[in-house]
Amino acid sequence: MKTGELDTPTVVIDNRLVEANLQRAQAYADRHGLKLRPHIKTHKLPLFAKRQIALGAVGITCQKLGEAEVMADAGITDIFIPYNIVGSSKLERLAALHRRVTLSVSTDNAPTIDGYAAQFKGAVAPLPVLVECDTGAGRCGVQSPQEAVELARRIEAADGLRFEGVMTYPPRGKTAEVDQWLREAVRLLDQAGLTARRVSNGGSPDLYSAAEVTAATEHRPGTYIYSDRMQVSFGYGSLSDCALTVLASVVSRPTADRAVLDSGSKALAADTSPEPGYGHIVEYPDAVVTALSEEHAVVDLSRCANKPVIGEKVRIIPNHVCVVSNLFDTVHLVEDDEVIARIPVAARGRVT
Amino acid sequence: MKTGELDTPTVVIDNRLVEANLQRAQAYADRHGLKLRPHIKTHKLPLFAKRQIALGAVGITCQKLGEAEVMADAGITDIFIPYNIVGSSKLERLAALHRRVTLSVSTDNAPTIDGYAAQFKGAVAPLPVLVECDTGAGRCGVQSPQEAVELARRIEAADGLRFEGVMTYPPRGKTAEVDQWLREAVRLLDQAGLTARRVSNGGSPDLYSAAEVTAATEHRPGTYIYSDRMQVSFGYGSLSDCALTVLASVVSRPTADRAVLDSGSKALAADTSPEPGYGHIVEYPDAVVTALSEEHAVVDLSRCANKPVIGEKVRIIPNHVCVVSNLFDTVHLVEDDEVIARIPVAARGRVT
Repeated sequence: MKTGELDTPTVVIDNRLVEANLQRAQAYADRHGLKLRPHIKTHKLPLFAKRQIALGAVGITCQKLGEAEVMADAGITDIFIPYNIVGSSKLERLAALHRRVTLSVSTDNAPTIDGYAAQFKGAVAPLPVLVECDTGAGRCGVQSPQEAVELARRIEAADGLRFEGVMTYPPRGKTAEVDQWLREAVRLLDQAGLTARRVSNGGSPDLYSAAEVTAATEHRPGTYIYSDRMQVSFGYGSLSDCALTVLASVVSRPTADRAVLDSGSKALAADTSPEPGYGHIVEYPDAVVTALSEEHAVVDLSRCANKPVIGEKVRIIPNHVCVVSNLFDTVHLVEDDEVIARIPVAARGRVT
Repeated sequence: MKTGELDTPTVVIDNRLVEANLQRAQAYADRHGLKLRPHIKTHKLPLFAKRQIALGAVGITCQKLGEAEVMADAGITDIFIPYNIVGSSKLERLAALHRRVTLSVSTDNAPTIDGYAAQFKGAVAPLPVLVECDTGAGRCGVQSPQEAVELARRIEAADGLRFEGVMTYPPRGKTAEVDQWLREAVRLLDQAGLTARRVSNGGSPDLYSAAEVTAATEHRPGTYIYSDRMQVSFGYGSLSDCALTVLASVVSRPTADRAVLDSGSKALAADTSPEPGYGHIVEYPDAVVTALSEEHAVVDLSRCANKPVIGEKVRIIPNHVCVVSNLFDTVHLVEDDEVIARIPVAARGRVT
């Protein structure tokens, strides 16, 4: 089947672009002696997780236990969940998963460490725990290297846990600051007799300057596999590297300058980007997707020389591709405009 | 099970608030001789579609064929799809659905009418088609009452189709303008010997002024069943009417004024509202959800007298509730803090 024969809206993934994006990143990591631990939140597909491993990734990163369970079921054996796992139900699932795969988690606070410790007390194999550091992104993480040492001590002191290292989700474009933060943490940990076996950094925007964070031993890029409009606006590659597009149909042309597509926020998500509008229409690069409701995308065609007709199909590069993967039960893999596979998004909707 | 025992993030729906919201709307419609045809995009649950019908709704509205198929499977017998159904795959499904239920669709253009006509030519029961009118919302719809008459003629002339009336998705707070537009369309249609059996208006923000659109015979509210932060900001009810909340856990407290919840954009969606932040935290009304990533909500607590601890669960009223229903495979129905049912969201993710 040709791509253009697919019913819309749907997700189309260019297999060759995926392969090129994966190989480029792995080659960069290999060249700089950096381990790659891709974040599967972007694709949520065992197929691609396995390909990332086959190309040389040391393991994968999942943000949710439910995603990790899906990947373990598919045969992935080394999984990092960089999240505070809180509550008895999740801790029991964590223990069950720990018996099946090489697992590591993170924390940025004492109560979460105490939860891990209570669950894993007496475990045959201790649970490796990394301390999350807020190196400037303002999300989770301890606020100083000193705090990291305190939590590392608490981890190391707990029966059933092992202090594994430090991790961060870094602010964009601040490699020098992130490196300084992490180096200081490693130095203080060393002084305290605590070894950071892993120093884990993340993010796709700065993937090709990841080696500048000299303290890091591994990097966790997610979006790099598909890229998207936001990544391109951050300077990561170009629109022609974007492997995932939403195929949509023109369903209305109410005025000379307005088209409506059947790809609303239920297909493209409402995430914004530094560029105007809700995605880039490949065939009409001068068009602007000005508004989304759930099932409609309103498009301003006023700057377009040619304009689409009703029934015409177009491809849209989304602003933020990870959230699109979570909206579709299945995606299509294509090569040379031929659909080569229809794949269920196995780890979609794993909220817990 | 008590609500607070549920694992997070998850969706909790107050059954009594749902019932009150439904009854209030039906009573208003009955009092004004207006037919109610609720839009199920908000809940995507056969259970509530049936309750809406039982309370007096004449049928339901679905935005997607796939949603309509789910509702037909569940026994709903009167379904309106206010959408241009384009392409052979969808037209075949439309014909199959038309053989099972009382179905109607809309259009705002000639090519779509020609597609309906080709599919339904010679049909035993003609397909009822309404003409969509752009009364100011700037999405789909013909731009003038005269254009509506032209399309109505084209529908009426087609074997297998029946001109059923006109419909609009109206701009908010413009009932007088919408009424004038629709009255003029009905007048011109009458002059042309074409009867608008149905004049269908929509939207929850103006639900309780729907009767001011005197031309309308039916109203299609969606969000009214749950309400949300955006509706409240538009003047529709109060936060205490909001029936759906996302239950989330505090997983991090990196600073005195910052909390992080496990409800990111994968649970709350990134839709904005006139009010600041990404949702209203019921237990901490002075908190502001300042940023979402997929699995993290960053919360500013600086204006809160009391502050939550790690592991604590909170309920969040989302900015836009319809998109939240599309993010969860299952939801929980509660009464008096007791979970009375766990319900699969049967029409979730029906993108085509």
